[in-house]
This record gives sequence, structure tokens and C-alpha cells, in this order.
Amino acid sequence: MFIADLETPAVVVDLDVLERNLWRMAEYCRSHDLRLRPHTKSHKIPELAKRQLAHSAQGITVAKIGEAEVMLQAGVTDILIAYPIIGRGKAEKLAELATRANITVSLDSVAVAQAIAAEAQKTDARIGILVELDVGFHRCGVTTEDEVLSVARVVSDLPGLDFKGLMFFPGHLQVPEKERADLRATVNDFLGRSLAKLEDAGLPVETVSGGSTPTAREGHLFTGVNEIRPGMYIFNDRNMIGVGVADLEDCALSVITTVVSTSVPGRAIVDAGSKTFSSDTHQVQDGSGYGLVKTDPDADVERLSEEHGNLNIRRSTREYRVGERLAIIPNHVCSTVNMHNQIYGVRGERVETIWEVAGRGKVQ
Amino acid sequence: MFIADLETPAVVVDLDVLERNLWRMAEYCRSHDLRLRPHTKSHKIPELAKRQLAHSAQGITVAKIGEAEVMLQAGVTDILIAYPIIGRGKAEKLAELATRANITVSLDSVAVAQAIAAEAQKTDARIGILVELDVGFHRCGVTTEDEVLSVARVVSDLPGLDFKGLMFFPGHLQVPEKERADLRATVNDFLGRSLAKLEDAGLPVETVSGGSTPTAREGHLFTGVNEIRPGMYIFNDRNMIGVGVADLEDCALSVITTVVSTSVPGRAIVDAGSKTFSSDTHQVQDGSGYGLVKTDPDADVERLSEEHGNLNIRRSTREYRVGERLAIIPNHVCSTVNMHNQIYGVRGERVETIWEVAGRGKVQ
Repeated sequence: MFIADLETPAVVVDLDVLERNLWRMAEYCRSHDLRLRPHTKSHKIPELAKRQLAHSAQGITVAKIGEAEVMLQAGVTDILIAYPIIGRGKAEKLAELATRANITVSLDSVAVAQAIAAEAQKTDARIGILVELDVGFHRCGVTTEDEVLSVARVVSDLPGLDFKGLMFFPGHLQVPEKERADLRATVNDFLGRSLAKLEDAGLPVETVSGGSTPTAREGHLFTGVNEIRPGMYIFNDRNMIGVGVADLEDCALSVITTVVSTSVPGRAIVDAGSKTFSSDTHQVQDGSGYGLVKTDPDADVERLSEEHGNLNIRRSTREYRVGERLAIIPNHVCSTVNMHNQIYGVRGERVETIWEVAGRGKVQ
Repeated sequence: MFIADLETPAVVVDLDVLERNLWRMAEYCRSHDLRLRPHTKSHKIPELAKRQLAHSAQGITVAKIGEAEVMLQAGVTDILIAYPIIGRGKAEKLAELATRANITVSLDSVAVAQAIAAEAQKTDARIGILVELDVGFHRCGVTTEDEVLSVARVVSDLPGLDFKGLMFFPGHLQVPEKERADLRATVNDFLGRSLAKLEDAGLPVETVSGGSTPTAREGHLFTGVNEIRPGMYIFNDRNMIGVGVADLEDCALSVITTVVSTSVPGRAIVDAGSKTFSSDTHQVQDGSGYGLVKTDPDADVERLSEEHGNLNIRRSTREYRVGERLAIIPNHVCSTVNMHNQIYGVRGERVETIWEVAGRGKVQ
């Protein structure tokens, strides 16, 4: 089967580019003695998690219990659920998973630690815990070194839990490179103070988990970090080009679309909208646009309806005609893949493999 | 089962409100002698399409072939696919569906008409065609009355196709009421000129299909319109409140979430982000915010990550605690439902039914 045989819209992944992306991240981690624990939220595909494990990853990261379950079923046995697990059904399931695999969870409150410990005790499972720090993104995470110590102490004392170390997500560092250095200094300050506090208290820290693709190759510049959790690097996208950590040729994933209308002057409409790309905006520059048309840098994916991509082609020098196909690189691969039940691995024009997005749409 | 038993995030629909929404739209259409053909992209659930048919709808609208197929399997036999069908696989499937149901398609080009006719001929199916007009949204649709006539003539002459009339989508009228009236005048002008042109040419127009929820109850104010295609009215959402066509109590759908972190001062984090709500923005006012917290109008759903909803609670007067549940009304119901494999119909606190979102994730 060839790309031309696929019904559109179709999400295709260039396997040569994907393999180069995997190899480069593995090389970086090896050269800086960092453990690699890729965030599989970017694909939710067990076969791709296994490729990451074959490329130096020592375990994986997921966002949900249901994703962990899918990965475990496929034979992945070292999983960080980078999310505070709360709710009795979830904690029960977590404890059950921990009897079958090496499971770690991040959290930032005593309430979550206690709830998890209560279920862990019933199964004799041991669950690893990373205490999450808010290093400036202002989402989850404790905000002072005293809180780090106080949550770590509770975790250390609770039955069923093993305090493993610290985790942070530097989401606010998804900015161009020159802005990242200043922000990193503040992150390092908080990390340094927290690690000192834990050392004084005699609490050993096995892991300091940093990450995200924009900061991945700066992992060695963060205080104490010995593990990173990049996700998007496997595919890359328009945002990663925007923050300067990928070039167009590093983008493995694109959406094959068909032009369905050229009736309105200055417009070409493709059969892929927000239910294909997601409506995630561009995270840099002025935030405009929903993708890059690979063969026409002058076309602007200006607006998305649910099933229509609305291209402004006024600046374009080429003709557009109904029925032709366009490959478009999305703003944000994680959200795009999540819209689809299956995506395609291609080599040149040939479709080499079909992957089920097995981890998508999980209730918990 | 009760709402409290559902794992979060969970999309729940208040059946009493849904039934009132269905009844009101049916009443409006009856009183103005308009045919109702709801757009089922808002739910993609056959059981809900059937409820709409039981509430005066004379057929349904879908956006994709795959959605039409799901609805037809469930016994719905009068379907408008409001999308230009292009591509041989799709046209083949369309022709096959048309042998089993009353199928109409919208289009705005001779290329699409010819491709559909070529496949229709092979099956002896007859496919109804509505010529789409661009009334100002600048997406699909021909832009002059001369083009309307020219496409309609080609359609009338092609074997396998029946020219049925006109269709338009007034997406640019998703604005507050006072702005809609002016825009409507321009729409009516184009509709009037097009209808006159077709009449002069002796081409009978059976249907003029307008629609969308924001303009639904103004359907009778559009020149020649005898059918409307609202979608969101079945649930309503924050955008529909924003444009003034629904009140909070008309919103049938909400997402039940759990607070997973309160570590960062002024923030409460819930377990529902862009992979639960979609990242569709608010279409009115300053565009900020991703939902309405039902029990706390002072909380601002300020930012979404993939699995985190980041609430700014600085203006809030209540306490937030980890583990508590919050019901949140999304900006845009169509995109929210599309993220989920199943949603729940509830009456009071009781879960009365589970619906599979059977039409989501279709390839074509």
C-alpha cells in the first residue's frame, strides 16, 4: 500500500526521520549520562514505546492509569505515571498494576500519598513516588523546599510507598532558546535548595526527573537532574521548530489532506480541521496558524473548523485544485495523534505499518 | 449507578435539559413551518439522532461518510452529508450508501459533482445535491449567483444526481445578537439574487438549507430558507451562552472533573485538559477561558494542558481541596464530545444511560 492509497485525512509518520529522532536523543542521553524515560502521551502506541526502549530508554512515562495499563499489556514493565492519582477506583487500579510492574507516580500532596498508600497496603505492592516541584509553570508541584521535605517525609513514612526523588515539568521553558537560559537559573536555584534540604534530612534521592522536548538537550544543565522525559522529540512539530529544537526535516509526522474547495478567492479548503489536528495554537511568535504546508511555505493554515482547514493562499505562487493532496505538519503532535484511532508508518511513498493508537480515549 | 460512581473526567448530559432543548427547537420549527435537519456532528451518537427524529426532525446532517454509515446502520435513512465528497474511495462509498438511504450531499464545484456522478452511475443510486453558497464565512461555497447557476446547471445535467437546492453555513454569525442582524441582510441579499437566477433559468429549488445553533431561531428571517441544521442546541455550551442563544440552565452537558492539586497558591488543578475539553477557545468577548465551573462563577478555567485544567481561583471565595469534584461546562460541546468514546445520560444524580460516541474517529 502507498500513501496515495490512504483515505484522507491520514496521519503518516516518516520512519526514517522517526528513527533518526530516536537515535539522536539516545546519543544525547548516553553522552551526558542521563536516563531517558520518554513521555508516551505523544503517541500512546505500545509499538513506539518499544522502539524507544530499544533506543536507550530505561522506562517510559504516561499521563493516565489507562495508558499505563495498555503499555503494561504490551510488555512494558517500568512506568512512571507523571500525574497525581486521586479517586478510589484509580488508586485501586494503580495498586493492582504495581503488583505486575515497576510503577512510580508523581504527586504534590499528602492527601494523594495517603490515598495511594491505603490501596497499596491491600495488595502488598510497592509504589515509587516522586515529589513534584512547581519550578515556574504554576500547574502542579509544591513551591518551597520546606514543602518538598514535608511531603517527602510523609511519603517515606507511609507503608507501601518508596520515596524515589523529585520531578518537575518546565512547561514555561517552551520558548525560544535565548529566553530559556534565564528561566533555567531560577529552576536550578529551587532544585538546589530542595536537594540540600533532603540531604540534610537524610532522605536519599535516587531520581531527579526533568524533561520535555524543548529542554531535553539541556537536561545536563539542570541541577541534579539524572533523568529526562521528552515526548514530542519522536515526531517533532511546528511548535518544536518554533522554539528552535527541530528543523523542518526533523518533523516525522504530517497529516495528508485533500483540497475539497477552492471556490472562495484566496482560499483553499482541505478536509482536515480541529477534529483532525486539534485546535492547539502555535506556542511562539504571534500564535497564528495551525500548521505548515510542507510543499508551500507561503500558504497559511489560517483557521480551522471541525472538518475544514481554511488555507489563506493569497501570498502563494502556486495554483490549488480540488482533489489534490497536501501534507501538513501540525502545531502540536501529541494532540493531533490523540484525535485518531490509527496512524501510519511510511518509508518513502510506501505504507510500512499501521499503528493503533491503543492508549487514546481512556476513561481513567 | 450514580454520577459519584463515575471515574473522572466524565462527560455527563442532563436528560431533562436535553429533552427541553429538543422540544423547544421542534416547537420553533413547527411554528415557522421550517424543516429541522439537526447536525449530528455535535454528538455522533445514533440514539441521540433518533431522539431528534422523534422531536420533529425530518432527517439528519453529518459531516463525513463514516458518520453517515454509522447513522444508517442504526436505521436513520434521510441523511445530508454537508461536505464536498472528493476522492474515489469516498465517492464509491457514497454511491453505495445512496442505494440504501435517501442521501444528499453539498458541494460547490463541478469537479466534485462529476466525481460523484461517475460513481453514482455505477450503482443506479440517485444522490441529492445542494449547491453550497459562501454567504460570508469564507470557507466553502460559491460566491456569486452566476456560479450558483452554473454549478446547478451542471448538477441538473449529470446522470445520477438530483439538484435539490441551496445550502449555506453562516458561521460568521456566531456573534452576539445585535451584530447578527446586519450580517443577515447581506446573506439575504445573496440568497435572493441566487433564487431569482435559478427561477429565471427554470431550475426548481426544493430546499434552501440554513442553520447552525446561533442563528437557528432566526431561521425564518432568512430569504427562502425552509430547512435549518442546528447542532449544538441539543446540549448548548459556554459559546452559546456567549452569543446569547442559551442560558446556563439550558446547558445539558458538563464534564465532571476531580481536583488533583492545590499546591500552587491561587490555583486548583483538575484532571481534565485539552484531551478532555479540546482546546477550542471562547468565541466571544476577549476569547479567554476554557469553561464555566458550574458551582463557582468566580473560578477561571484559565489554561489547559493535555490532562490538566488550570483554574485561577484568586477571585474565588470558596476553598478548594484535593479529591473534590467540579462540573465544568465546556466552550464547545461538539469538540468535547469528539474526544470521548462514551458519554453518560443522567437524571438528577442517577446515571440513566451510557452512549457510545459511535461516529467519532472515522477515517473518511
